[in-house]
Amino acid sequence: MKGRDVITVLDFSRSEVERVFEETDAMQRALERGERLDVLRGFVMATAFFEPSTRTKLSFQTAMLRLGGSCIDLPPEELSSRAKGESFADTIRMLDAYADVIVVRHRLEGAARFAAEIAAHPVINGGDGTRDHPTQAMIDLYTVRKALGRIDGLVYGVLGDLRYGRAARSFILALTLFNPKKIYLISPPQLASRPEIIERIRERSIEYEEVRSLHEVISELDVLYVTRVQRERFPDPMEYEKVRGSYRVTAESLKGAKPNLVVLHPLPRVDELAYDVDATQHAWYFRQASFGVPLRMALLKLILRG
Amino acid sequence: MKGRDVITVLDFSRSEVERVFEETDAMQRALERGERLDVLRGFVMATAFFEPSTRTKLSFQTAMLRLGGSCIDLPPEELSSRAKGESFADTIRMLDAYADVIVVRHRLEGAARFAAEIAAHPVINGGDGTRDHPTQAMIDLYTVRKALGRIDGLVYGVLGDLRYGRAARSFILALTLFNPKKIYLISPPQLASRPEIIERIRERSIEYEEVRSLHEVISELDVLYVTRVQRERFPDPMEYEKVRGSYRVTAESLKGAKPNLVVLHPLPRVDELAYDVDATQHAWYFRQASFGVPLRMALLKLILRG
Amino acid sequence: MKGRDVITVLDFSRSEVERVFEETDAMQRALERGERLDVLRGFVMATAFFEPSTRTKLSFQTAMLRLGGSCIDLPPEELSSRAKGESFADTIRMLDAYADVIVVRHRLEGAARFAAEIAAHPVINGGDGTRDHPTQAMIDLYTVRKALGRIDGLVYGVLGDLRYGRAARSFILALTLFNPKKIYLISPPQLASRPEIIERIRERSIEYEEVRSLHEVISELDVLYVTRVQRERFPDPMEYEKVRGSYRVTAESLKGAKPNLVVLHPLPRVDELAYDVDATQHAWYFRQASFGVPLRMALLKLILRG
Repeated sequence: MKGRDVITVLDFSRSEVERVFEETDAMQRALERGERLDVLRGFVMATAFFEPSTRTKLSFQTAMLRLGGSCIDLPPEELSSRAKGESFADTIRMLDAYADVIVVRHRLEGAARFAAEIAAHPVINGGDGTRDHPTQAMIDLYTVRKALGRIDGLVYGVLGDLRYGRAARSFILALTLFNPKKIYLISPPQLASRPEIIERIRERSIEYEEVRSLHEVISELDVLYVTRVQRERFPDPMEYEKVRGSYRVTAESLKGAKPNLVVLHPLPRVDELAYDVDATQHAWYFRQASFGVPLRMALLKLILRG
Repeated sequence: MKGRDVITVLDFSRSEVERVFEETDAMQRALERGERLDVLRGFVMATAFFEPSTRTKLSFQTAMLRLGGSCIDLPPEELSSRAKGESFADTIRMLDAYADVIVVRHRLEGAARFAAEIAAHPVINGGDGTRDHPTQAMIDLYTVRKALGRIDGLVYGVLGDLRYGRAARSFILALTLFNPKKIYLISPPQLASRPEIIERIRERSIEYEEVRSLHEVISELDVLYVTRVQRERFPDPMEYEKVRGSYRVTAESLKGAKPNLVVLHPLPRVDELAYDVDATQHAWYFRQASFGVPLRMALLKLILRG
Repeated sequence: MKGRDVITVLDFSRSEVERVFEETDAMQRALERGERLDVLRGFVMATAFFEPSTRTKLSFQTAMLRLGGSCIDLPPEELSSRAKGESFADTIRMLDAYADVIVVRHRLEGAARFAAEIAAHPVINGGDGTRDHPTQAMIDLYTVRKALGRIDGLVYGVLGDLRYGRAARSFILALTLFNPKKIYLISPPQLASRPEIIERIRERSIEYEEVRSLHEVISELDVLYVTRVQRERFPDPMEYEKVRGSYRVTAESLKGAKPNLVVLHPLPRVDELAYDVDATQHAWYFRQASFGVPLRMALLKLILRG
């Protein structure tokens, strides 16, 4: 995998993703033993977050530092030379001249791909527009594998904004590399999955169903992936008020779930995932967040050292 | 001390503080010899400054880096996921998943204690509200010990805002772990020490006196701790104008002081400590600031390695 | 060179600059071989950018990290203790207490020199007002040396804002340490070089000529240094519109140039250097930018270790 860009999870085969997971297991063990890793000493990672994301940036930085590497960070836009009008391409060229790998996050779809075309060094997509967030998707699947021992043969519910939500979309795409038993797409009609996602699920002959509420399917799920339904997506605020209750996950709404149900959330959360879920055995989202470090360590190591 | 939180200076016994001072001496010597320390290689410190403080943050970061460790930093609030409404508790949980120790600074009293309850890793209070700043207090006492060879048996003056000033309050609390000869509390009545501080001084049978001006007591002092009287604390601006002269320390106002008088200030200063004091033999505040690095090195080492 | 401040390029003799270039060659080779350098392990560099400059800051940080050193950074002004009114001198004293070397950038001329007077540790000027940018000037000359094998005996054109442009000014000063065949100063009259620069060129008996357009001299040049003519410099916007075409470098405007003409630009660029130049053999500015890292590595090593 040395030298590879990471733009969408579909750039990877199932066996490559599994290779990342095995390396993640090794990193996880090293972290638990408090080992001092040195494998990326002398390497520099640049983060270029044109759209802010504290969690993703700190997780990548921690991963790099834990491997003995170093980090530089493009400062917020208004402080940087972009204020003087520098083009995105020139900015990427600059980072490419300084760093060994570049993590890009951007409001616009395709920004990470464009960066990868410009840069000689590997580019990792840290989230672009409404499209991809490949490392998040790998973390999500890795969590399922840790929680339930496998990814294949399970029933998944993906809830919330499936139209504009990057995390939900990337999670579904990642699932299509595996063999889920069924995927329930749970959203209001305005926020249903885009045709190309449905097309991809069909191509891979994965059973799926679009439903309007969690209530209908909760008892069948092995995994529930929660994302936020944003008020701003509804032209009519009353429409939002009507549906919001159906997309808010609480301890109450999980009654009737399988005892092993795994609830995931990419975090940060606002009110779509109630605090009373934290105390249930279903809450895997904090562990999910913590897996971000060893998984990104694994990926950085594979990309930079092979 | 391994694994300990540092929330208030009163979490420590006198002998523990002295243990920190001895370790600080060792760090200081290592810095002077230009030794490359490696004791925290592989460790990551997170700084979460919900209230900005350049000096405290850079001092902690320098301490960590000088020990071979690494740093991650929660970006300013408006850029972070808190803009999306993430709760304080979720933010602390995130940092706890990434880092080995968390330094928290917050405008609200109790924020550091709350963080310590959430986080599995040690939390250090880098200043909370009007309450505590324990590492500053240790630096202050360490400076007295370096300047005068001891902390016990001296006459202290603490000047300025004793009511809302975190540094003054923490310094007085730290003094109560030792045996000062006397503490003069020098402030306008509106900014006098709170009852719980007076209570603590009394409990420890330390002689103290509340006075209104430096002039009355300057000749008796071994140590003068200067903090700022802020205009905003006075409902009536004329009240402020009347008293401000009495709480501004200048070379002139130090006439009549003992030759060895040690003037301390937590910095940054505005106009409460005149530049003409810098050239006097009393000016210990720049050395005080520089002790922040070895003292925080000592504390980080003791907490993370024992 | 150990312990030296770097305020203006004229602080250095020709042979010292050549010493920096030789060390830069060594650093460049080490980077190409992927060597892990450790020469500044345990050292801390502080960046104090009172005026933002992403490229300069990241380039210095990368240089320090590639040598095994660490970085601390003064946060943007409004977030720092300067918001509480701390003086520039106190801020520099703080950084001097923490770091082994300080890089200062400031809108005001003389700020770096003033910092150097205050700090016990070496200070590097990362750009001050309209005056100096010594490391940029060294990078520029190093690029000429890499591209054409020498600096002496060549014909240089320096185009754009020669009056307020720090990079152009520093480049011309650096040239006066060598023996260029001729320097063409190409600018509108409002933005012509200041008398002290002309004086310096004359003192050194270097042939020069002030011209109004690139067109007149393009065929003679070995090196063309492009900087921006800013609209804001013209009291009358119509004046700007009249001249702007003459100071915009495009592939078209380079027709008639020598095949080996080297085009330099300090970057970032806006529209003064067209993207169609990137594909010509004249475009050296991206390589120029990349030389920032090894050159600053060389300088940091020489200053901190000798």
